[in-house]
Amino acid sequence: MSGNTIGSVFRVTTWGESHGTALGAVVDGCPAGLFLNESDIQQALDRRKPSTSLSSTTRKEGDKVEIISGVFEGKTTGAPVSLIIKNLDAKSSSYNELKDVFRPGQGDFTYQQKYGIRDWRGGGRASGRETAVRVAAGAIAAKMIAQSGIDVVAYTYAIGSIAINRSRMPADKNLKIFVRENSLFCPDSNAAVRMEKKIAAVRKKGDSLGGIVEIIVNGCPAGLGEPVFDKMDAELAKALMSIGSVKAVEIGDGLAMAGLQGSQTNDQMNKRGFKTNHAGGILAGITNGEKIVLRAYCKPIPSIAKPQQTIDSKGKERIIEIQGRHDICVLPRIIPVCEAMVNIVLADHLLRQKAIHG
Amino acid sequence: MSGNTIGSVFRVTTWGESHGTALGAVVDGCPAGLFLNESDIQQALDRRKPSTSLSSTTRKEGDKVEIISGVFEGKTTGAPVSLIIKNLDAKSSSYNELKDVFRPGQGDFTYQQKYGIRDWRGGGRASGRETAVRVAAGAIAAKMIAQSGIDVVAYTYAIGSIAINRSRMPADKNLKIFVRENSLFCPDSNAAVRMEKKIAAVRKKGDSLGGIVEIIVNGCPAGLGEPVFDKMDAELAKALMSIGSVKAVEIGDGLAMAGLQGSQTNDQMNKRGFKTNHAGGILAGITNGEKIVLRAYCKPIPSIAKPQQTIDSKGKERIIEIQGRHDICVLPRIIPVCEAMVNIVLADHLLRQKAIHG
Amino acid sequence: MSGNTIGSVFRVTTWGESHGTALGAVVDGCPAGLFLNESDIQQALDRRKPSTSLSSTTRKEGDKVEIISGVFEGKTTGAPVSLIIKNLDAKSSSYNELKDVFRPGQGDFTYQQKYGIRDWRGGGRASGRETAVRVAAGAIAAKMIAQSGIDVVAYTYAIGSIAINRSRMPADKNLKIFVRENSLFCPDSNAAVRMEKKIAAVRKKGDSLGGIVEIIVNGCPAGLGEPVFDKMDAELAKALMSIGSVKAVEIGDGLAMAGLQGSQTNDQMNKRGFKTNHAGGILAGITNGEKIVLRAYCKPIPSIAKPQQTIDSKGKERIIEIQGRHDICVLPRIIPVCEAMVNIVLADHLLRQKAIHG
Amino acid sequence: MSGNTIGSVFRVTTWGESHGTALGAVVDGCPAGLFLNESDIQQALDRRKPSTSLSSTTRKEGDKVEIISGVFEGKTTGAPVSLIIKNLDAKSSSYNELKDVFRPGQGDFTYQQKYGIRDWRGGGRASGRETAVRVAAGAIAAKMIAQSGIDVVAYTYAIGSIAINRSRMPADKNLKIFVRENSLFCPDSNAAVRMEKKIAAVRKKGDSLGGIVEIIVNGCPAGLGEPVFDKMDAELAKALMSIGSVKAVEIGDGLAMAGLQGSQTNDQMNKRGFKTNHAGGILAGITNGEKIVLRAYCKPIPSIAKPQQTIDSKGKERIIEIQGRHDICVLPRIIPVCEAMVNIVLADHLLRQKAIHG
Repeated sequence: MSGNTIGSVFRVTTWGESHGTALGAVVDGCPAGLFLNESDIQQALDRRKPSTSLSSTTRKEGDKVEIISGVFEGKTTGAPVSLIIKNLDAKSSSYNELKDVFRPGQGDFTYQQKYGIRDWRGGGRASGRETAVRVAAGAIAAKMIAQSGIDVVAYTYAIGSIAINRSRMPADKNLKIFVRENSLFCPDSNAAVRMEKKIAAVRKKGDSLGGIVEIIVNGCPAGLGEPVFDKMDAELAKALMSIGSVKAVEIGDGLAMAGLQGSQTNDQMNKRGFKTNHAGGILAGITNGEKIVLRAYCKPIPSIAKPQQTIDSKGKERIIEIQGRHDICVLPRIIPVCEAMVNIVLADHLLRQKAIHG
Repeated sequence: MSGNTIGSVFRVTTWGESHGTALGAVVDGCPAGLFLNESDIQQALDRRKPSTSLSSTTRKEGDKVEIISGVFEGKTTGAPVSLIIKNLDAKSSSYNELKDVFRPGQGDFTYQQKYGIRDWRGGGRASGRETAVRVAAGAIAAKMIAQSGIDVVAYTYAIGSIAINRSRMPADKNLKIFVRENSLFCPDSNAAVRMEKKIAAVRKKGDSLGGIVEIIVNGCPAGLGEPVFDKMDAELAKALMSIGSVKAVEIGDGLAMAGLQGSQTNDQMNKRGFKTNHAGGILAGITNGEKIVLRAYCKPIPSIAKPQQTIDSKGKERIIEIQGRHDICVLPRIIPVCEAMVNIVLADHLLRQKAIHG
Repeated sequence: MSGNTIGSVFRVTTWGESHGTALGAVVDGCPAGLFLNESDIQQALDRRKPSTSLSSTTRKEGDKVEIISGVFEGKTTGAPVSLIIKNLDAKSSSYNELKDVFRPGQGDFTYQQKYGIRDWRGGGRASGRETAVRVAAGAIAAKMIAQSGIDVVAYTYAIGSIAINRSRMPADKNLKIFVRENSLFCPDSNAAVRMEKKIAAVRKKGDSLGGIVEIIVNGCPAGLGEPVFDKMDAELAKALMSIGSVKAVEIGDGLAMAGLQGSQTNDQMNKRGFKTNHAGGILAGITNGEKIVLRAYCKPIPSIAKPQQTIDSKGKERIIEIQGRHDICVLPRIIPVCEAMVNIVLADHLLRQKAIHG
Repeated sequence: MSGNTIGSVFRVTTWGESHGTALGAVVDGCPAGLFLNESDIQQALDRRKPSTSLSSTTRKEGDKVEIISGVFEGKTTGAPVSLIIKNLDAKSSSYNELKDVFRPGQGDFTYQQKYGIRDWRGGGRASGRETAVRVAAGAIAAKMIAQSGIDVVAYTYAIGSIAINRSRMPADKNLKIFVRENSLFCPDSNAAVRMEKKIAAVRKKGDSLGGIVEIIVNGCPAGLGEPVFDKMDAELAKALMSIGSVKAVEIGDGLAMAGLQGSQTNDQMNKRGFKTNHAGGILAGITNGEKIVLRAYCKPIPSIAKPQQTIDSKGKERIIEIQGRHDICVLPRIIPVCEAMVNIVLADHLLRQKAIHG
């Protein structure tokens, strides 16, 4: 109801504010008997850290996750897994001057409208920091679905107007390792170089950049997703769109299909299976056993150093220049978050399918 | 859990198959005291009828809705409103030959994989006919939120590669009436003529067309949508993506924002409010009082007359040419469905906001 | 949210009013492949019919159930099963004079307070007639869990102050057949004779009777029920207490345990299993493989012919004598309803267990 | 789904094990703007502490609650409120010898059956310690509903076979203060003396005692509770039955009504309102504005010093004598838990009513 929980069987509830004591997630519905320790989760979390790359904030988010329930002698017990990440390097004083001002592109104005009160320290509940615990919860989901052979990988498809060249991408089986070795999670090293340059240039101008994340899922069995409202694509779209920066989501050939004809977009079948995968692995909302392909379009980071016009809580006009420690581009840090959300949705639907269809 | 219900407070559950006895929806959570009769709903349903336009099936879907509970002496009582639409012109015999064949682009294969059994008559539960009862339920939502001044209108933005010219659109206040007078729900009469021609040409070739629906919401108050997972844009994306043909959804400037910089996409404010609306009326997942703008990208209708390769339930390769009565383009008939889904989400969030925030 | 749905995986939503067009239930989450036809359900429904016994209303509730979705070629498809029972013998005119009066012991006053409007015909949504569709839905649940060897039977434990003598009860394996042959569903024929006499005497006085239903579940595997809030006993208590007449629920030795000591109430174990079953088959909210034992305490039917003081909707004092066709004792007609509710809860938890724990 | 969450709008999720690092609750759906600090919660928690009375364990549960999110500058923000209580005095070593043994009357056997694994330290997730965080969450609910004038108080009705004498109870308005000054939460000082003696005698014999908690709610407005499945009495029954020791729940005159006639149990009305309150404040599942009256029947504490027969995880027969630090009677410590559960249900339904009915 209040929007802090996702999932029907594998359920993740997050809590916490950017500059509060801690952030946390309660993962309920994880089957008993899964081997799990903090380092499984920490690895995913480390990928979300501000990189050494030029794209990121200089705030040190050395996030350390603690598992404080639901695991006994190295295995899940079926009880809720409570995860906590303490907020260490939270300089809320640097937000003092933004206390009464609605930053453009942020939730300041809408939270104030909704609740009549807001924790203005670093965006409070609306901060991107909340995604740290999504990543932690997603790591549990990933571990669980890996047992069924499902593997999710997200990577940079474009930063600003610079897109990758698909012909330079490594094969699917090498993709995950390849992108994780690149500070931009970019599967085309050539494009990565140009992206880094672009980021540097934009940083100098006090501006920020958008980009496109591509997510693929290998090994997903046919039959996941529920008819009508909880179609797999609908659930994935919601999960990705629930990430603050994402403003569009597409599945398979997605928006390009709107301009084509049925004979070009239908995936025909022969004895060996589907001949093409325009549908991106989902038919009528249910996985068809092919690779799932998704793209999330992210808007630029709204916190920019350039002067912007806005109003304060009394309606007075103000000019602000945001000086805090901010990322320039939401990629690559959003990539582990996209991965987490897809892992969570798949974990949930794997269990949903087990419940009803065995 | 089984995906046939949407909403947390204003909840819609649909049931029924394309060629069964009837289709229905149970609308639970509608406040008591709302004036409601069948003609309120029938009007919405009539807009979903196959039009006289060339784009549609020749199946006569003279759907008549019946309200069979929850309304007493012309007003809702707070009890669930049960809606039924009987299936009249259901020639399931014409599907006999498709009984064992998996039609490309349809749910035949995935339903079989998921359930081990499927109602093959006309797509069964996966048929577009299921959306008739969504439209009926959406009409109740629309009536309810109209009391708060919220008004939703959807229209054709593009059919195939033919898009409207925004400069030829009528003003927002005339838009609804204008598009409903046009058989393609197209706000640009000039483009509509070209679209009709395109549809005719594609019909001759035995092919089908995709397109883009644009939906706008006027009068939505600030503060709707819940943080984190149930952001308004996430909920709308899910609701639209749950319509069979939709393969991509964007909000506001959407995918275009991925290629831009923060200074171009932030909506600055002055005393009179937001100076621009790149965000499409939603900030940090919560409505900001501006016009909500959404686009749904639809793939072409998969049922085409052209020969296609596929397999049957025994894995044998087959060539099929689908001869049934089918639409050529999912637009304009999907337009009332998009409208319904947005109305349902807004009705739900209006009540969710009342519950917690007064 | 609006209280018309029960269950997490096996979900039942009911709709309809006592004197409306029809009543119905949507059963969502029933696994595909279950053999199901109307006569499976009709048999349960017939047990809820006013009996020839003196205890019942003379309203002819020749309820006929129709399955209008979710079943194809004799088997469930995984899609929602929609059930409808038309209201045939609904004389709402006989309620005209009660239109503005709040009948003591009924929901008239509270529905008016809650909604500001109410369907006064025969109790509307609050009527016991709503339980007809629970019985129908419960019959599907019963069929589903029978596949796992689970069998539920409910019977009369007491009517007014006349209780059965347990030593006269047939063995568990004969119990179901035995009680269904008795018009009072009473497992002690001797007590049944006295109960019939009591009912006749109370009818003459224009009064009504309460009673106690006992429900036992054989064959339930260990491990069903979820920790903490959704304990099996908590879920069963809710399900039974959701029946209008039930004012108390106990599990196993129940209330008697409050006056005893731990050494008397603990069920010790030996190699063959539990030595006693004071707990009624549930430990820490989870089934332990023993027989589940429940009792529901029902208040007398509130509709009595004796003059009663009340007020009308304008607050004016009134004396009413309710003349309609009413049952004298809620037993035996409530018995199939108790059975249905327990079947529904067990079906749901059987699937919940499958989802998470395999 | 996994049973660790209760509520639809005001939602409480608990996590943690008896001898883990900590226990916690996430309270989601609490309206913004409620004044809240840790001492509000600590007071309720302190009432659950093992008392100086003879009835309690000697384990020092000096539980200190921390609010770690959702409160900013002394007020709730609408974001989830995360509560943590660290486990300080957890001597799990004392459970080492019980590691493989199923204690009679406890969840050891059923958890093992359900999950195939269990945290055997002090009952793990099934421990009564989990109720500490329910009390913490309930304190927030109590504070919220107090704004609407609703006040819940629970007290000892009976310990073993010693019941209070209602004529010795203080008036409702003094009741709360009175019972909180008595170490047994007993409203009849005379009975309290006999209860203390009984507890002392039973302790010497190495046995334990059951009892009955009575809960009353003053000031609850008419109209709360949802029809059909989520009736107020059904929801309260579930909430109380979800407490480990509770084996029966009754509302109003409850089980006594089963033996009476309608003319004795109906609450007639006159201009001033209801003339009696046999129904316990709830009619047709909806509050009627009268005092709500509930009783929870608790079984004796299963951990007793007397030798008991049981089996170990390999099925071998064992004799155990439980020596740990345990309560003798679940009352009075369960009283704040009953209060908490009722507060949580009422808070939830107050918000549910606001959502739909304004």
